[in-house]
Amino acid sequence: METVTRRLAARFGVDLDESVLRINEVVGQMLAHRSVRAFRPDPLPDLALPTMVAAAQSAATSSNLQAYSIVAVQDAARKERLSRLAGDQRHIRDCPLFLLWIADLSRLDRVAARLGEEAGANSFFEMFLVAVIDAALAAQNAVIAAESLGLGTVYIGGMRNRPEEAARELALPPRAFVTFGLCVGWPDASRPAEIKPRLAPTSVLHHEQYGAGEREAVEVSAYDERMRVFQREQGMNEVGWGKQAAARVAGAGTLSGRDRLVEALNALGFELQ
Amino acid sequence: METVTRRLAARFGVDLDESVLRINEVVGQMLAHRSVRAFRPDPLPDLALPTMVAAAQSAATSSNLQAYSIVAVQDAARKERLSRLAGDQRHIRDCPLFLLWIADLSRLDRVAARLGEEAGANSFFEMFLVAVIDAALAAQNAVIAAESLGLGTVYIGGMRNRPEEAARELALPPRAFVTFGLCVGWPDASRPAEIKPRLAPTSVLHHEQYGAGEREAVEVSAYDERMRVFQREQGMNEVGWGKQAAARVAGAGTLSGRDRLVEALNALGFELQ
Repeated sequence: METVTRRLAARFGVDLDESVLRINEVVGQMLAHRSVRAFRPDPLPDLALPTMVAAAQSAATSSNLQAYSIVAVQDAARKERLSRLAGDQRHIRDCPLFLLWIADLSRLDRVAARLGEEAGANSFFEMFLVAVIDAALAAQNAVIAAESLGLGTVYIGGMRNRPEEAARELALPPRAFVTFGLCVGWPDASRPAEIKPRLAPTSVLHHEQYGAGEREAVEVSAYDERMRVFQREQGMNEVGWGKQAAARVAGAGTLSGRDRLVEALNALGFELQ
Repeated sequence: METVTRRLAARFGVDLDESVLRINEVVGQMLAHRSVRAFRPDPLPDLALPTMVAAAQSAATSSNLQAYSIVAVQDAARKERLSRLAGDQRHIRDCPLFLLWIADLSRLDRVAARLGEEAGANSFFEMFLVAVIDAALAAQNAVIAAESLGLGTVYIGGMRNRPEEAARELALPPRAFVTFGLCVGWPDASRPAEIKPRLAPTSVLHHEQYGAGEREAVEVSAYDERMRVFQREQGMNEVGWGKQAAARVAGAGTLSGRDRLVEALNALGFELQ
């Protein structure tokens, strides 16, 4: 059994002292999170999806608007097509359950229409943001529930590479957008995922006001070293974090087609004003 | 002790049968979620914030970019000012700890700059969205951790009412945005919060493709009835859900100033192209 000490060391190195934390079963589970991209072919128990959805729906939602939907895909051919839309990610084909998290203003449009009213605010950027945040909070609860059942998950931001095609594949109505996917399945123990190191808590947490001073450069440099060790152990290129992150955000060309996301969202019926 | 049966009945009425779920301690806790707006004045234990942050940092983050920051506010005068920016919400003043969740591209800007590189992708809408989703996933983990310690929380979307002033109060650098706030504190048992009913799972979950048929109207109508019962019990106006939601999204005027969010984000250095 992996200990909490081991989990914290893998995540934060010497940057977090266990004695300042209160560890219980729930916290301990969250500290053990790793994104799983290697799944066994075994099907999920019938109770997994309803449990994940019940957890998702128990998350907070802005003004109780519940501006999100979930599409659960298990059909192999559809997973194959969705995988191709997301840069041909193999784990989308391999996982038994692929969940699409939809920022969904269309339900509110329909609710208003049935009352003979207009949902005028839905054409504003704020409501798009509400829907995205609702979807993200719900999805994270589903992830925590899945992990509590022994399942593994990985988020798929690549579902934003070709948003109109993703929407068409899922027959989404206007003002509904695949914010991200989530692969769910049994982790393949023969290809285990490791806990990924993170920035020092002091790099992320500020007190009273944002204060990224010279401290940050030193902390990122130390984190670079921890990431290099991790990359070496995982057989990856030992580039550290800073270089890898900078390369990822270098320009439009590093966005895998998502540089045209605004155009895509307008085509999907969002006005983003 | 509140039973899981009681929690499910409060959340879903007869729309979810307990027998299809797998309940464990983690899932049971999530089902018990309620947003808490009434706090005892008692301070938090020192371990609460580090535990919440460690949980937050253990959430998935897109390409490990960690494009979010947290500002922890405990100063009474600052909470008072932030409360006024968010429509004068009393619980922001009352809670001992107010966390601001920042969609933060500025750190990546700095990381790239230290390497003599440009973070050109940071001027695209996609990277703004990555930062918002990162912040939301991290925050939800923090909420789950807080609740496991017996604490209560409530998200504050009202922090988007006046984004430039919020950024100034927290001394945020360019390309950092207060996505939402989170009040944290001990729930006041004399003013308990109740589990809020949600839509039937079948209204939110679709299989293979999005299929909101005539079923939805019937389900929303049944949910309206459950919400009216809840509202009656809570001493609220018995308007149901549909009318309340439709009123909330009626138009620009119902957005509490957030109809100018795009202008605010541009002023904060996001380009949203």
